[in-house]
Amino acid sequence: MTTTLGGPGALMASETAQQPAVWRGLLAESGPSGASGIDAAAALVRRRSPRFVLLVARGTSDHAALYAKYLVEITLGLPAGLVSPSTFTAYGARPDLRDVLMIAVSQSGGSPDLLRTLEVAKAGGALTVSVTNNAGSALASTADAHVDVLAGPERAVAATKSYTAQLLALYLLLDRVHGGSGVADGLPDLGDEVLARDAEIAALATRYRFAERMITTGRGYSYPTAREAALKLMETAYVSAQAFSGADLLHGPLALVEPRVPVLAVVSAGPGGEAFRPVLDALAERRADVLTVGSAGAGVVLPETADALAPLLEILPFQLLARHVAVDRGGDPDAPRGLRKVTETL
Amino acid sequence: MTTTLGGPGALMASETAQQPAVWRGLLAESGPSGASGIDAAAALVRRRSPRFVLLVARGTSDHAALYAKYLVEITLGLPAGLVSPSTFTAYGARPDLRDVLMIAVSQSGGSPDLLRTLEVAKAGGALTVSVTNNAGSALASTADAHVDVLAGPERAVAATKSYTAQLLALYLLLDRVHGGSGVADGLPDLGDEVLARDAEIAALATRYRFAERMITTGRGYSYPTAREAALKLMETAYVSAQAFSGADLLHGPLALVEPRVPVLAVVSAGPGGEAFRPVLDALAERRADVLTVGSAGAGVVLPETADALAPLLEILPFQLLARHVAVDRGGDPDAPRGLRKVTETL
Repeated sequence: MTTTLGGPGALMASETAQQPAVWRGLLAESGPSGASGIDAAAALVRRRSPRFVLLVARGTSDHAALYAKYLVEITLGLPAGLVSPSTFTAYGARPDLRDVLMIAVSQSGGSPDLLRTLEVAKAGGALTVSVTNNAGSALASTADAHVDVLAGPERAVAATKSYTAQLLALYLLLDRVHGGSGVADGLPDLGDEVLARDAEIAALATRYRFAERMITTGRGYSYPTAREAALKLMETAYVSAQAFSGADLLHGPLALVEPRVPVLAVVSAGPGGEAFRPVLDALAERRADVLTVGSAGAGVVLPETADALAPLLEILPFQLLARHVAVDRGGDPDAPRGLRKVTETL
Repeated sequence: MTTTLGGPGALMASETAQQPAVWRGLLAESGPSGASGIDAAAALVRRRSPRFVLLVARGTSDHAALYAKYLVEITLGLPAGLVSPSTFTAYGARPDLRDVLMIAVSQSGGSPDLLRTLEVAKAGGALTVSVTNNAGSALASTADAHVDVLAGPERAVAATKSYTAQLLALYLLLDRVHGGSGVADGLPDLGDEVLARDAEIAALATRYRFAERMITTGRGYSYPTAREAALKLMETAYVSAQAFSGADLLHGPLALVEPRVPVLAVVSAGPGGEAFRPVLDALAERRADVLTVGSAGAGVVLPETADALAPLLEILPFQLLARHVAVDRGGDPDAPRGLRKVTETL
């Protein structure tokens, strides 16, 4: 179904389409005096040379944080963890966080539990960096350094451009900390290439129109994509989508797989995709209906890119798919039932 | 439906019923010369006084690891993270793990990816502790210290007694590291009390017999319970059960909640349960069908216990429920389709 101006999902369609332009803007502002603040934040992190990294986020931003966790472990060689804010807010944990870098990721920068977590972390000795889409937010001003993902105002409830801008900002930040050169220049053009395939994805969506349940899966860098894809399908099309890392899928949830439950597998050409092969075999054994998406996919084949950057391209077909399925079903992904843009929990 | 000797789910029923006895045995063997090895492991950890804790596990054991993460953050005041084994195995990450304690949790102790992760961690300078149900396993002999959860042979594919034995062993270990006294003596009797309510849960199961989808949720210490409850429902009764932390539920997945999708909420009397109140309000607003389980629950009301020990009791009704729903639907929870007891991924 074509998305018409002002029609259901028009906002989400417009923000999805803006992504390559947002990436170009962020890349242009990632230099020493760039408005993103990436360079200054990276310099501060290098100076303090943390030994452990904690990430804190909610919802879509939590998937960007999970992506950053893989980057920290693999490229920086530092142990990392995702914080459950309730330990700080509800249980009053006051951990010793000297030598710890805490990165808070939030589109709005306005989530009270993230702000409280950051404050507690700072008091506990952590170096704090916030990554938001709002330089005027409390999270931005509280952190020792702020990275602006420069995605521009995001009005659709389902986050799209702020998500990939977070991924790119985190990639550039951690690459800079590592002393890398951040070769991401070709990415916006590849993004345009993928988004131009909207008709292909719209055709795919007709196949999933009647699916009540879906399973998304991936390993390594592609696992955050599987998680975010499931969230998009849940919040816009109300599909009961479950995301599993490839390895976890084999520990129990595989019993759920049957021919009438579609599986969307994110498979890149990197080590994560390689390690995913046994999962594809197990799915075939259970006669699953599998669509593979990614640079090593056979269904929606994406252009190859550096392994760590693949998640930026991988999520695009899922953003398109979620919107098409939602609109085909008569819903409006711009106004999902029961949701608001900024969620406040303490 | 009554579970008959040798009938469908008989093995799972028997192992579920053994849990209080397993806890008694573990408590008896948790002293200085006890067979669990808890005391020696705790002494070693205290001597090395790590500054960060990493946990690694898969499947049900991963929910025990998540529980331990809360304990570490809240009671030990140390930052903690859950490791994605693929970063070590597929991506070859070799992080600097001096001052890091890595705890590997596994029923069988035979998972190749956990073993590899532990070996890499050791080589990277970490102090390693394994928590298994098999003192003769590779994981047990590779770690610097081993804790035996002493659950006895577990033959049902769906883990029950090994899970709560892991919870108790981790509680005792971390309590001992903290220099605490581990007041868990009353727990086995409370466990017997809960398990004696099998008929109440069997009656509940008839209500969920036709539910294709379910949502489980909880906050803080109760979140691992929500995760494990969903896994039990998935792997035994093939219910498409999705677990969300209370806060994450409000970030998107709330759109999935509608009167025909039952919600099972784990609500304890502690801070986690308190922080969960706004989630219950949001669920009521969406006219959700909510069953609350826990010491602050109104549906399946559980005896009150120390906050950190509540997860041992909370999971029991869900183990019973999953088995009853599975058997009612004509399945055999002892032989779920597509699953084996030990899952090997690299």
